[in-house]
Amino acid sequence: MKLTFLGTGDSAQMPVYNCQCPACRRAHNDEQYVRRPCSVLIQSGKDQWLVDSGRMDLCRLFSPGSLSGILQTHYHADHAQGLLHLRWGVDMKIPVYGPPDESGFADLYKHPGILDFSRPFAAFETRLLGDMQVTALPLVHSKPCFGYLFETERGAIAYLTDTVGLPEQTRHYLSGRQLDYCIVDCSYPPQEHTPRNHNDLNSALEMCEPLNIKNLLLTHIGHKMDNWLMSFSNTLPAHVGVARDAQVLAF
Amino acid sequence: MKLTFLGTGDSAQMPVYNCQCPACRRAHNDEQYVRRPCSVLIQSGKDQWLVDSGRMDLCRLFSPGSLSGILQTHYHADHAQGLLHLRWGVDMKIPVYGPPDESGFADLYKHPGILDFSRPFAAFETRLLGDMQVTALPLVHSKPCFGYLFETERGAIAYLTDTVGLPEQTRHYLSGRQLDYCIVDCSYPPQEHTPRNHNDLNSALEMCEPLNIKNLLLTHIGHKMDNWLMSFSNTLPAHVGVARDAQVLAF
Repeated sequence: MKLTFLGTGDSAQMPVYNCQCPACRRAHNDEQYVRRPCSVLIQSGKDQWLVDSGRMDLCRLFSPGSLSGILQTHYHADHAQGLLHLRWGVDMKIPVYGPPDESGFADLYKHPGILDFSRPFAAFETRLLGDMQVTALPLVHSKPCFGYLFETERGAIAYLTDTVGLPEQTRHYLSGRQLDYCIVDCSYPPQEHTPRNHNDLNSALEMCEPLNIKNLLLTHIGHKMDNWLMSFSNTLPAHVGVARDAQVLAF
Repeated sequence: MKLTFLGTGDSAQMPVYNCQCPACRRAHNDEQYVRRPCSVLIQSGKDQWLVDSGRMDLCRLFSPGSLSGILQTHYHADHAQGLLHLRWGVDMKIPVYGPPDESGFADLYKHPGILDFSRPFAAFETRLLGDMQVTALPLVHSKPCFGYLFETERGAIAYLTDTVGLPEQTRHYLSGRQLDYCIVDCSYPPQEHTPRNHNDLNSALEMCEPLNIKNLLLTHIGHKMDNWLMSFSNTLPAHVGVARDAQVLAF
């Protein structure tokens, strides 16, 4: 099982347009700090699945037939906008599995083109995708949103974004499992009050506290979070890392 | 006045994903035949206005402050999807003038960010943008849609997409004018029956017949139209050209 971060940014991406903050200036000057729309590619055996489709260069990134399909955490623009172009391909179908969401994104349901939205996951449903077990885990967001638990004989990865905290049932489902990697929405640095829809660092660490996680990786990083991380006086627990675009996790 | 084609394709763009037709294969192999989302940049004096925002690399193409604003012909995905990212800039406002359209595109009205949609054009309204007179011309499409007439002392350009034919009032408005360039939706090669929403070559030529046009340029070209153009047996009237991405018209 291999996971590649295709994007680790929030909806504004990094650098933020017209922003002169230290983190945005750094990303302007050094490609390694760019954060694209939050998404990963997960590969196991011959299968590779895209998790979220906010990148706008999907047709360039994935030659026809190279994707087994797409898993959507949800249908906000920054997680689905890449489908607007991809759908107009021809002579093929790409399954898109996400949460049940009546409205989806823009006119994708009305004009799906080559995309097949007909089989959304149910909450806590497990599907076998190649040799991966994939389970849909309800999250806490402003639109129906699923995280995904990926399991093979080699290990387990939980991908939990966008969310602020976890629903009790999801926490319960995960708490019995050893997670080699847990990848979590952490859009903001520590806030006085828990934000809506996305974790700050406090709520990200708090939601993971009861879980059995070997490596915790933060994603969906906003520029304020990156500025916070740039200060030497701010530290993270030893088992916590911050994901970067193009980073690879492999078993 | 200078006009640059930033894109001359239809919603599928060119090459079409997974298409093996001669036109798509040619565009795969030779960048000059690529057609991006249909849009132009129009410059006059110190002002430059983007007409349609379907390109997804707007933040890279236009440094902050370099755009005077955006004119939307309408709010279909392939003409507006680039706004989904651009809106999340900071510390500035970009005026976006388009037709009155209650729904706009996706959640752009709900979360406009730095975009200011507050001053849509009225039909046949003329505004002075720098030293350009810009007039909004109703078109025939499945969503409220305006073409634009750009006039300076040096000349006049009409940009008329997306449309199939012209409303009587728009034809009447244009028929009194000398157009140095008229840029027209021609998504399809000649069809047996006039298509809906977009011109085929027959309806494009027919709608321009009563107008006083020096140079007619076709845009919003689909791959079937490009295949038709690749055949030596098919010809266009002498004053008719087919726009290409990056082509420049200047007075």
